[in-house]
Amino acid sequence: MSAEVVRVGLLGLGTVGGGVIKTIRSQQEKLASRLGKRIEIVKALVRDSEKERAVHVDPALLTTDFEDVLSSDVDIVVEVMGGVEPTYDYVRALIEKGCHVVTANKELLAKRGTELVDLANQHQVHLAYEASVAGGIPILSVLRQFLRTNDIQGVRGILNGTTNFILTKMEAEQLSYQEVLKQAQELGYAEADPRSDVEGFDAMYKLYILAQLVYGESLPLADVVRKGIADLSAGHIRIASELGYRIKLIAQAYQAEKGIRLSVEPTMLPVSHPLAQIHDAFNAVQLSGNIVGDLLFTGRGAGELPTASAVVEDLAYLLTQPFTPHPTWKEKTADKAGGTLDSAERVLCYLEGSCQTATPDRVLHFLQQAGVNVQKLKVQFDLGGVLRAGLIVTGISEEHESLLKNDFGLSVRCFPILESA
Amino acid sequence: MSAEVVRVGLLGLGTVGGGVIKTIRSQQEKLASRLGKRIEIVKALVRDSEKERAVHVDPALLTTDFEDVLSSDVDIVVEVMGGVEPTYDYVRALIEKGCHVVTANKELLAKRGTELVDLANQHQVHLAYEASVAGGIPILSVLRQFLRTNDIQGVRGILNGTTNFILTKMEAEQLSYQEVLKQAQELGYAEADPRSDVEGFDAMYKLYILAQLVYGESLPLADVVRKGIADLSAGHIRIASELGYRIKLIAQAYQAEKGIRLSVEPTMLPVSHPLAQIHDAFNAVQLSGNIVGDLLFTGRGAGELPTASAVVEDLAYLLTQPFTPHPTWKEKTADKAGGTLDSAERVLCYLEGSCQTATPDRVLHFLQQAGVNVQKLKVQFDLGGVLRAGLIVTGISEEHESLLKNDFGLSVRCFPILESA
Repeated sequence: MSAEVVRVGLLGLGTVGGGVIKTIRSQQEKLASRLGKRIEIVKALVRDSEKERAVHVDPALLTTDFEDVLSSDVDIVVEVMGGVEPTYDYVRALIEKGCHVVTANKELLAKRGTELVDLANQHQVHLAYEASVAGGIPILSVLRQFLRTNDIQGVRGILNGTTNFILTKMEAEQLSYQEVLKQAQELGYAEADPRSDVEGFDAMYKLYILAQLVYGESLPLADVVRKGIADLSAGHIRIASELGYRIKLIAQAYQAEKGIRLSVEPTMLPVSHPLAQIHDAFNAVQLSGNIVGDLLFTGRGAGELPTASAVVEDLAYLLTQPFTPHPTWKEKTADKAGGTLDSAERVLCYLEGSCQTATPDRVLHFLQQAGVNVQKLKVQFDLGGVLRAGLIVTGISEEHESLLKNDFGLSVRCFPILESA
Repeated sequence: MSAEVVRVGLLGLGTVGGGVIKTIRSQQEKLASRLGKRIEIVKALVRDSEKERAVHVDPALLTTDFEDVLSSDVDIVVEVMGGVEPTYDYVRALIEKGCHVVTANKELLAKRGTELVDLANQHQVHLAYEASVAGGIPILSVLRQFLRTNDIQGVRGILNGTTNFILTKMEAEQLSYQEVLKQAQELGYAEADPRSDVEGFDAMYKLYILAQLVYGESLPLADVVRKGIADLSAGHIRIASELGYRIKLIAQAYQAEKGIRLSVEPTMLPVSHPLAQIHDAFNAVQLSGNIVGDLLFTGRGAGELPTASAVVEDLAYLLTQPFTPHPTWKEKTADKAGGTLDSAERVLCYLEGSCQTATPDRVLHFLQQAGVNVQKLKVQFDLGGVLRAGLIVTGISEEHESLLKNDFGLSVRCFPILESA
């Protein structure tokens, strides 16, 4: 084996960082024969250098002071500490020193990626981030290299494993969101503070990055439609199922007339839709190219090893490549922020309220008078006199929703439908 | 736009060749901005230069004489004529002239790929063949570039769209193989001579290529287990379904104790298996990496545009890359050719015969005496006194099968089961 060494610094040594160390160790022969060099971790920034860790690391490599990493003459840094502050400052300082960066940090990229891409280009270093989207699925590399001749007409997917796990379990076991969340937290599938996942932030950051690669631009995060899953009930899921649909947290980007549109929201999928088959903590990304047609990529979207796989594959790949400038990232304000619903598109409208104030006949009569086209209807009553109804409709507006709430005392939730290809 | 031109020659101008021309035309702006060069088709070898074609081509570019292509000073040739003779000689001559090659020809690669790879390396030209496996799914590129640090423990997939279309329709409409084949031929999903598809040759060639990329070696084609779908009946499919399985023509490669094993054969998949969800003419490839876990890639595996997409993406990619030697292909004889069945593995055994000679009780008694472990059983009788039974068993041997045939007058067909991950 060559004596030449690649000096790697780690920012963060949590779950993914531990996975990166394990992977570099277990795959060291393969890496050495591919690179003709040995990979050596020379410094790892941690919060607490005394903490017990699942993976053994020489204590001399650990530091709590970023300056130790910066002065360690590393060739490449692997950033798996997460967050934006102080991470951005650290990554910036390392790029300015001429260090390549491999990161799994979607939030950092979605919030400061445009600057980091420019900075990396200016200093002629690689910025690699396959691990930031859909874990081990090499979707970003494919987009950057092997689908660049196609016009990508749309990209949609299940980009957050925690919420998909929760939705799968809510459906399979007819449980409420709160019950499943508790289970998911006990199993380690959801964090103690689950907001980043269940409110759709995590999926939104990933979608932002996908849009940069697909369209060469993205929206300011404030212009992305984002709805979470925390208000979903067993009732929503049951009515959806009776109408032939399954609820998934779908992230989508597409080119509308007035620029690109990004949305992350609970969406109704026909049960036969390929994305409706993605269960538990799996992720999936579906691309529509004008020449290739629809492609679907599925795999584990998170976890120690799948994410570490993407980090280490990225690291090895960039070490075999000469520097070429990264395509610039751009942000363009959406010229009309807001809903993704179009009045011609079908939505599944869920209504719940007391039978005393809202009978199916009266509700239907009202909707027909209001010009809402009802294509399908399922109604359930329970012993307590609660009406639950699911309607597939077109032409429903926010004004109609208000009237249903005020005049009929109904709670109303409308879901977009992802029609089958 | 730069005045620089890439001179492209085409061998073959059938369905895929026409798609390549259409794609180069429709995506010309994108290609030019990516490459900084204009792509120009300078010569196309055809069998009949007078034939009407779906895509307009300047008649001056057409030739029926390969020497015209060879003397046209082309930078790259796109080989979409298929077959091994005379294709191999043409490709060889072009490589020797220093011409890069993009091919969609799985048969050529499976039969002469080891030589072509060496020849391309010797002449320092690119040999690109993404289009040869799974159409528009960029599975080979991913294996070559982004999964090289993982140990790939197995690869399996549905690599032939024609047979998957036939099996999907046999199941959905409870039709016989012959009826569906006729429909598929009328729809253009199956060729007039369907043998390459339905006998598993096409899938075998693709599997051979996948194995070269995954394991750095493959088996001589004679050592690959290959069974087709032409003997499948509606009865097989019905019994499978009653036992919770779906039949798919599965191509798999895996590392066994004594070297790699390749097989293409009708296989029983639990209906919830991800590959059991692949319908119609779609293809799918599932990879198991030791770090990344299972990845699944799905898309259209054939057809004018998906295949053309892979050809043109390959062509554009290689034009942006410096030459690097292609990893050598090797062939290693399997030290024991033959079945992939292991006595510990469960198989679904289908029996059909007359109730007069074979009652379920007697058959079961015989199997138990013979040490075959029967885990599950479904039996059907029809009005004509025909017994059809499906058994999930372990420990069944060819000797047992012979006895069932001879002593009970049963026809016997055993299918391997692909257990859920």
